[in-house]
Amino acid sequence: MVNRGVLMADDLNQMDEDELDGLRVSAILEAVEAHDTARITQLLEPLHAADIADLFEQIAPGERANLLRLWSGEIDGEILSEIDESIREEVIGALPDSVVAEAMRELDTDDLVDILEDLDAAGQGRILDALEMVDRVAVEQAMSYPEGAAGRLMQREVVVAPEHWTVGEAIDFLREASTLPDQFYHVILTDPRMIPTGYVTLGRVLSSRREVRLRDILEDSFRTIDATEDEGGVAYMFNQYHLISCPVVDKGGRLVGVITIDDAMNVLDEEHEEDMLLLAGVGEESSISDGALATARQRLPWLVVNLFTASLSAFVITQFEATIVSVVALAALMPIVASTGGIAGTQSLTVAVRALATRDLTSSNARRVVRRELGAGVLNGLGLALILGCAGGLIFWDLRLGLVLGIAMIVNQVVAALGGILVPLTLERFGLDPALASGTFVTTLTDVMGFFAFLGLASVMLV
Amino acid sequence: MVNRGVLMADDLNQMDEDELDGLRVSAILEAVEAHDTARITQLLEPLHAADIADLFEQIAPGERANLLRLWSGEIDGEILSEIDESIREEVIGALPDSVVAEAMRELDTDDLVDILEDLDAAGQGRILDALEMVDRVAVEQAMSYPEGAAGRLMQREVVVAPEHWTVGEAIDFLREASTLPDQFYHVILTDPRMIPTGYVTLGRVLSSRREVRLRDILEDSFRTIDATEDEGGVAYMFNQYHLISCPVVDKGGRLVGVITIDDAMNVLDEEHEEDMLLLAGVGEESSISDGALATARQRLPWLVVNLFTASLSAFVITQFEATIVSVVALAALMPIVASTGGIAGTQSLTVAVRALATRDLTSSNARRVVRRELGAGVLNGLGLALILGCAGGLIFWDLRLGLVLGIAMIVNQVVAALGGILVPLTLERFGLDPALASGTFVTTLTDVMGFFAFLGLASVMLV
Repeated sequence: MVNRGVLMADDLNQMDEDELDGLRVSAILEAVEAHDTARITQLLEPLHAADIADLFEQIAPGERANLLRLWSGEIDGEILSEIDESIREEVIGALPDSVVAEAMRELDTDDLVDILEDLDAAGQGRILDALEMVDRVAVEQAMSYPEGAAGRLMQREVVVAPEHWTVGEAIDFLREASTLPDQFYHVILTDPRMIPTGYVTLGRVLSSRREVRLRDILEDSFRTIDATEDEGGVAYMFNQYHLISCPVVDKGGRLVGVITIDDAMNVLDEEHEEDMLLLAGVGEESSISDGALATARQRLPWLVVNLFTASLSAFVITQFEATIVSVVALAALMPIVASTGGIAGTQSLTVAVRALATRDLTSSNARRVVRRELGAGVLNGLGLALILGCAGGLIFWDLRLGLVLGIAMIVNQVVAALGGILVPLTLERFGLDPALASGTFVTTLTDVMGFFAFLGLASVMLV
Repeated sequence: MVNRGVLMADDLNQMDEDELDGLRVSAILEAVEAHDTARITQLLEPLHAADIADLFEQIAPGERANLLRLWSGEIDGEILSEIDESIREEVIGALPDSVVAEAMRELDTDDLVDILEDLDAAGQGRILDALEMVDRVAVEQAMSYPEGAAGRLMQREVVVAPEHWTVGEAIDFLREASTLPDQFYHVILTDPRMIPTGYVTLGRVLSSRREVRLRDILEDSFRTIDATEDEGGVAYMFNQYHLISCPVVDKGGRLVGVITIDDAMNVLDEEHEEDMLLLAGVGEESSISDGALATARQRLPWLVVNLFTASLSAFVITQFEATIVSVVALAALMPIVASTGGIAGTQSLTVAVRALATRDLTSSNARRVVRRELGAGVLNGLGLALILGCAGGLIFWDLRLGLVLGIAMIVNQVVAALGGILVPLTLERFGLDPALASGTFVTTLTDVMGFFAFLGLASVMLV
């Protein structure tokens, strides 16, 4: 026992002061197994809430349950708001009511809404009951906006001043205020109807003399966001215009809250994840803490869809069975045509999906980008045709086979390039997510057209 | 002419006050064609610099050259710093020296460095010559850090106070200061050796009484970043710990600058783009303003690599030519096996690359995630085997063919699941970008193993 104690002290010294590394995770899991609550606290205490949340996601479900049992009293609002939604319900369900109530009271409305929207009705009720009346009303108002709207992302705690105030009046007001938001970066000016007319950065307030009027030191970059605006649009605005915080207004233009950049950055990160996962045909809800069954279930749908779309390729090939039997080398070369087309389609598609997400691909340049993709497809088709045509011709010592391969390659590269750009553009036009199922569409297209061109030409030219 | 003027006024009214929409782009291009400088200014003036930069990226090269000629005098530092690096050299090259010099003097050091690092030596010299000595020294110091390091991302303009100051002293100092950074969110406290010991948010400074000591209202969340830290790590820290700005220190721990969240958000966005493009086998430098030739050149390398890897599949198939000739349905079914494996591999791979990027997949849970992928692969393999085995057996009325299809499906799903997680984990272990070429590796693996299992089983069981 003494030996082990010494070893652990050494471990602690080796750890980075406040980082969640593999060493610390192992030490925590050992402490959980030994039911050593004091040691768990010693190891978790120096960590940021976000790292503690990551720990919960990274350990196995059984370990998580044990850690929760031993350490539930220490779990605060910040940790709960950092925990991934895939396990949040499980974690909250394991906590005593008193801990949940205490944790919820610490949080700003935007974090409360973020937690609430992923819970079932019973869980929501449990949390709403724990809130004070004023917070409860604020949260229920925010929840009345549709999911993914700016109104759910905003915090309702704002710092507002009338348009005629001076710097001195604002400072006196802030010094007297009994509660202020955890984080704020602007003083927002509003007219008497609570319509925001501009804002002043705190840096300007601090560096101006008391008698200066706020309206004389307004920021140029002032913008507002509609509470119904989609969160993807909010993230875009923050990134595009380098906003730090932005007032949110209702239909009448009245100030209802403020969104800060850390929330926008989080949305940007999640939208990225969504694009990547959709492009790959994975359910958006996928998480590293999912088990094998949940993972299989998220991925099966697109695999089954793919079975059907791949059957189209099979059908095309069936039409040329006689050709394949007489020139069996065709069967061996088919996958080269298909996979090169697949890669080219994925390249073109990925560039298009990304450009649509960053709004670099618009109605103004769509035609030119389509022409460019076509041009690139033709060029790469020619290049690949040259390489593969020569190689195929030499290896199989058959000039016509080389020619067939080369032409099929050009056709397939052009199909891939056009499919990769036109499929996401079309989905976008119909108001669908351009990443959704684009991959399956495009690879089906390249497979079917590739096989058709290759085998069709072969049946005309080689048999 | 009058008619056209009226029409254009109408257009202007229909446009969103300050947005870059298709209508405005067409109007600007018309004005460029008509050499109507006043109208160009009228249309561009209300736009944010970031939108003007987007306009330059979205229009054709010829239009861009004309717009630059007509409007070069109005191009300021902010627009140049927003313009995509793919066309920045072209734009700066087209501007008179006086405009470039004027534009550069407006910018903070982080923006200057961002512009400089993408230019050739001649372009860099031209800009360095335009700077005042103090800025030039600051920029050259920042450029001495390696590309992609925190030292290049930081601005050197910082607001610092000695540890013993009160709120009142800080406010008086800020009011007297002749130059302050454009944006700052903290007052950083340093000891006499310039080692940062904590920071205070401007909100806390503003809401505290003059006599309060800064050291008594420090933020809990204080962290510093090493100037040599990789920018990806910086973006992760900002997102993980909800930082707004963070002091940057040199090897000796002394304050050398500060990074703000808008730059970190930009890096996060770019790192994501890089992951997506690498996964798809597209050069990272790709841009919407590239022409067909540049686009083709970026994409050709992976297409050629794929030619070679696909030849492996072709080689495997060649070994089973006799089998295919005797059961030609195999040729038709091959692509189903290959494409289902490819999709599953991409799914598993994408989840792994994303989890590595967000540091959700670590040494602590890698084993469990590998086991989970294996489990999911087996489950989906069984499911697909059942569907495809029955369908194949029924359609071709051959029980053994159904069995061969089913087993090949299971093998291929397992290979896909394991390849999708092990390939990126291995790349990461060797210090390579896990997204790099993973796609080609994994689909080659699923193709080769899929064909081998399918045709190998067929040659044993069916012939």
